Parts: sequence; C-alpha cells; structure tokens
Amino acid sequence: MQSLPDFLARVKPPITPALVVRRAVMMANLAAMQAACAERGVRLRAHGKMHKCSALGRLQIEMGAVGLCCQTVGEAETYVHAGIGDVLVTAPVPAWGWLRLAALARTARVGAVMDSAAQIAEAATAALAAGVVLDAHVDVDPGMARAGVAPAGAVALAAAIAGQKGLRYAGIQAYCGHHQHLSPAERAAAHAEWTARLVTVVAELRAAGLAPEQITGGGTGTAAMDLAAGVYTELQPGSYAVMDVEYGDLGDLPFAPALFLAASVVSANHASHVTCDAGHKALHPNGPMSRVVQPAGSVYKPMGDEHGAIVPPSGVGEGDLVWLQPGHVDPTVALHDAFFVAEEDGRLERWPIDARRASL
Amino acid sequence: MQSLPDFLARVKPPITPALVVRRAVMMANLAAMQAACAERGVRLRAHGKMHKCSALGRLQIEMGAVGLCCQTVGEAETYVHAGIGDVLVTAPVPAWGWLRLAALARTARVGAVMDSAAQIAEAATAALAAGVVLDAHVDVDPGMARAGVAPAGAVALAAAIAGQKGLRYAGIQAYCGHHQHLSPAERAAAHAEWTARLVTVVAELRAAGLAPEQITGGGTGTAAMDLAAGVYTELQPGSYAVMDVEYGDLGDLPFAPALFLAASVVSANHASHVTCDAGHKALHPNGPMSRVVQPAGSVYKPMGDEHGAIVPPSGVGEGDLVWLQPGHVDPTVALHDAFFVAEEDGRLERWPIDARRASL
Repeated sequence: MQSLPDFLARVKPPITPALVVRRAVMMANLAAMQAACAERGVRLRAHGKMHKCSALGRLQIEMGAVGLCCQTVGEAETYVHAGIGDVLVTAPVPAWGWLRLAALARTARVGAVMDSAAQIAEAATAALAAGVVLDAHVDVDPGMARAGVAPAGAVALAAAIAGQKGLRYAGIQAYCGHHQHLSPAERAAAHAEWTARLVTVVAELRAAGLAPEQITGGGTGTAAMDLAAGVYTELQPGSYAVMDVEYGDLGDLPFAPALFLAASVVSANHASHVTCDAGHKALHPNGPMSRVVQPAGSVYKPMGDEHGAIVPPSGVGEGDLVWLQPGHVDPTVALHDAFFVAEEDGRLERWPIDARRASL
Repeated sequence: MQSLPDFLARVKPPITPALVVRRAVMMANLAAMQAACAERGVRLRAHGKMHKCSALGRLQIEMGAVGLCCQTVGEAETYVHAGIGDVLVTAPVPAWGWLRLAALARTARVGAVMDSAAQIAEAATAALAAGVVLDAHVDVDPGMARAGVAPAGAVALAAAIAGQKGLRYAGIQAYCGHHQHLSPAERAAAHAEWTARLVTVVAELRAAGLAPEQITGGGTGTAAMDLAAGVYTELQPGSYAVMDVEYGDLGDLPFAPALFLAASVVSANHASHVTCDAGHKALHPNGPMSRVVQPAGSVYKPMGDEHGAIVPPSGVGEGDLVWLQPGHVDPTVALHDAFFVAEEDGRLERWPIDARRASL
C-alpha cells in the first residue's frame, strides 16, 4: 500500500470540510475484527452509533456481522428502513420510543436493553399492541452509573422479562465504556475485575433458570480481552472500523487510521499560522484534540465554530488542502452528511451518514 | 406572559432530545433588535450561521432585515434556494466555493468578504464565468488573526476590488467575535479602542476615493455599542433571536432566553442522579456548560455522546421530561434537524434546520 502522504495527495474532495475514508484500510480493519470474533466463535454486532451509515452497516453484515447495535431509536429506524434485518438498541429507550421500535419489529428482529420494571412494562405493552415480540436484554451496569441495573439486580429483572408476554428474554448486556480508553495495563486490570463479577452474574442467572442466550458487550479498546475472557457471546465494537486519535494513541490495538478530515486553507495573512475551514461544527471537541496529518508536524487549534488554525503553516497556503485525524470519531461523524470513501487512486464514492438525523 | 415552568409544562415534543423555541419570546427578541437598528438607521443583516433555518431567516427579513449573513457556501445555497434574495458570506470562501456562489448570484444578490489578492482574482474569475457581479467586501481583521487583512492593508485590497471586473466594491467588514463575550466593562473598553481604529480605516478609504458603501459587523454582545458608535451601516447579530447561557450570563443584553432542549429521563437507578438522553451529540460542549432549567436547582453533567446526568434528580423520574438551556447556541443548533416552535398553549410547529447539511 502506498504511503499516507501519497494517498492523500490523490484525494480531492469536491467540498470542504469533508470526511474521507481510506477504503483499503477500513476493509482491513473490518476483516481483522470479523476474523478475531470468528476465531473465538463470538458474534460480531458492530455498533452503528459510530458511523450512522447504513451503507457501512450493510457492509459489516455482508462480512459476517449478525446485525447492528444502535444507540437511538432513530438509528434503528434508519437501519431497518435500509434493509438491515437485525438491530439491538443498546441504550435505554425513551418512553416515546417503544411504539416506534415495536413497529420496526414487524419487519426486522429488534432487540432492546432494559434496566427497570417500568421499561419492561412499556416495552411489553408496545409489543403487544403491535403484535410483535421484542428481544429483551437486561442491561447490567458495570460501574458507569449511566444506565443499567446493579449486578445484584440482574436476576430479578431477567425474571420480570421472562414472565412478560410480548418480550423474549434474550440475555444480558454489559457494556464497559469506562474501560475502553484506559492504558493497556489499567484496562487489563479493570477488565479482569469486571469479568470476574460478570461470571458471577451469569452463574446467578443460570442458577435461577435464566441462563442468558446472549451476553453482549465489549468495545474497540477491550475487544481482545473481551474475546479472551470467554464470557461474551457477542461483541459491540464501533470505532475499530476507522479509528481516531483517542484509540490510536492507546498503542495496542490492531486497527489502523482510516478516517481523515480534509479542510481548505481559507486565510493566510500570518507567518504564525494559516486558517482552515474546520472548526467546532466539523471536528467535535470531545476527546483529545484532532491531529494534523498533513502538513506533518503542525498542530490544529480551533478558532470558533467554522475555523481552525494550522500552526505553523509548514508551507501550505491559501487554497491548499490540509488533512486531520479526528480526536473522537463518533461525535465528529455525527456532524457530517456523508463519508467520501476513497480508493487508492483517489476515486471517491459518497456514502450518506443517513442515521445522522436520527441522533436526535 | 405565563411563567417559564407553566409554559414548559404545556410542551410535549414528539421526540427527544428536541430543540424547542418559545415563539413569543423569540418574536420579542427579533422585534427588539429590529427596532434598535431602525432607530439608528442601521441595516440589520441577521446571521444565518446561528439558526441555519430558512423559515427563521425569512421571518427576520419580513420583520425588516435586509438579508442574511452566511458563514458557509452551503448556508448561502440553502437560503437562496429557499427564496431569500440577499445573502452575504461573512467568512472567507474556500477555493471550490466561488463558482457555486457565482451561480447563486444569477438569482439573488450575493456578497462575500475577501482578505487577499488571490481571493479577489478567484471571485472575479468565477463571477465573469457566470456572467454575474458579486458584491465584494474587504474583510478587515480587528485583531482575531482568524481571517481578514490588517487595517493598514484595507486600502490596497479595496483598490484591487474596485479595479476588478465581475466584482462590485461594496464596502468593508469588521467583525469582532473576540469582543462579544467580554464583561460589560471590558467589552466597552475593547469596543471603544477598536472603533477608533475603524474610524481611521474608513477615513483612509475615503481619502483614497474608496469610501465604503457598507460597513458591516457587530454581534449580539456588542450590538448596543455598535449602534451607538455611528460607524457601522449594517449589523450582523445572530444569537439575539433565541439567546444561550453564554450571552445570558453577560447580564446586560435586552434579549430573553427562547431556546430550550427537552430530554427524556431514560434511567433512574441512583439516588444521586437520573440519566437523560442528551449528551455530546445533542448539546455541543463548546462554551459554558448547558444549564438545567427544569428541574430547577439541578445541574447537567455530560455522560458521553448520547447521555447526561441531572444532578440531583430533584423529583424527576423515568419517562419525565427535563429541560435545559444550551451553553452555546450555534454549534448546538447545528447538531439538530429541526426547531419545534412552541406557542404559549404548547402547540408545536416544526421548522427544519435546513442549512444544517450545509455547514459541511
């Protein structure tokens, strides 16, 4: 494969700022995760919250994923409408969302996580009204305090689901978002501690006659540990497909950067920097600072909503393109309309980020 | 007008997170800015980068604005396609954008700012190719070092524009983004210092036979000072229409909060907080932290891309709505598909944020 500078020199997006995916690198990332899961006999359910792109989701399924994870009802709707036949909503569903999810379940397998008796009742009511059955997972909180039930409460919720018409007890979710970006040593320690607790939860469910068919969780940062642990039946990674500064800097993940932002230099009246047309509306500030890839050695400093400085200019001038790697991929992708997927010769194909509308 | 809690109690958006505009308050803000400009004989050219909504832009024009400012080529395209007949692009245009702007000028008055000889040449080439004339403003940098030419360079650029076929020398822009959020005393001092410099620039242009027809600039934070200064012929404020935490906290602006985000409580398993469905993808983290309006006395803490904590829960539970005021309006609006514009009785009208796609 040609060098990154040689590749970038061939790519000329029709507009800026533009998200460009290097197809060959993304394909290698997709294949690597699929192979790692297959080797362990674990299902891959790639997370659609990262890319919000049904074309990429369909590709993941063609390569072997069993379906997609969604973080919102709107993502689930977009993906099912695009022909994806198996979706799991991995975040708690707002009250208005159950009837919409149940309607989707008329044409696709639809699952959701639940962490309260009220959610179980609402989900069941909606499913019965729609004449469908929803796959229901107990959401077990591994310590984030964001959603999910404490491990000690898993059996009671599983029993409540199992006794509810309109729902099929499908297993449990345990997503450790707080582990994904720890250093390799800290991640391994936290993962081992949580896995021991998770094994206990599963044993308690089995003892209660509620053995989970699926134990779903995991992410890009912990995927190797999740697979080695032998507990999870299904992995939910998202970022591995294209990566970002935050995951790349961990240093131990077998995935390569495939996503870049092209921006135009639009003002060059200072020796200290040039100004490009990418600011807070094109590169989301959550996570580490986005990194300048081209010109090499420069840094990016946001200058408001629509602009950023490239410091120093390193030879680029007005009208030139500059290239950045997003700091945190998910919220940055959610700012854009489309990926421009690039071949090595620079040819581009536009893939709509069609679930973008759906984050809201 | 009823109290804010009484108003919010009547509003039930069909989805969450949802941006809700209190119409009566927005109308009062729009009228106040229009009246202040009219009183001084200054043109109001409301900034479309804030709302990205052609319905709101058309309303501003119906109420007396001469046109809209745009920060991107895509905003200009969206607004002209929506029937807005006069747009000014207030940020430097990327090289790929000039032909698209020139095409727009076949059906609308289209202006742009320029800060280099290269931009002037590109703009003129595009205008001549399209058989149109673009209004060209010299962008004068008031010290932000983001875009614009140093004040001492204004005469040379104005002369270059004036001698260029395809362009009409329309005046100068001097936008002081770095003044907008200073404390009242600091803002007054910075504004006075810059105004003195701007008066000199205008005198130099006049002496060179390049008297600017329009002197455009100003924002929500400095509007009263901009009007009192007697230099600007045109004001460019955006945020005044709906306000945000950042502008509201200045304490001296005659505009009231009209924009709120409704979120659903989706998990409530802790005494310390509840979790709502608004995170970094619904409330942009740039600027001050978004503020909880309802339940009163609680604070908002982001919990990742799709969730946030309401601390303490203050009596709200699963399925309830919580209400926030965005910290910084512009980038938060750019995350959403639509405003839900609410009457006092709670009836909602959906206004697409149709230039959202265009930020990229």
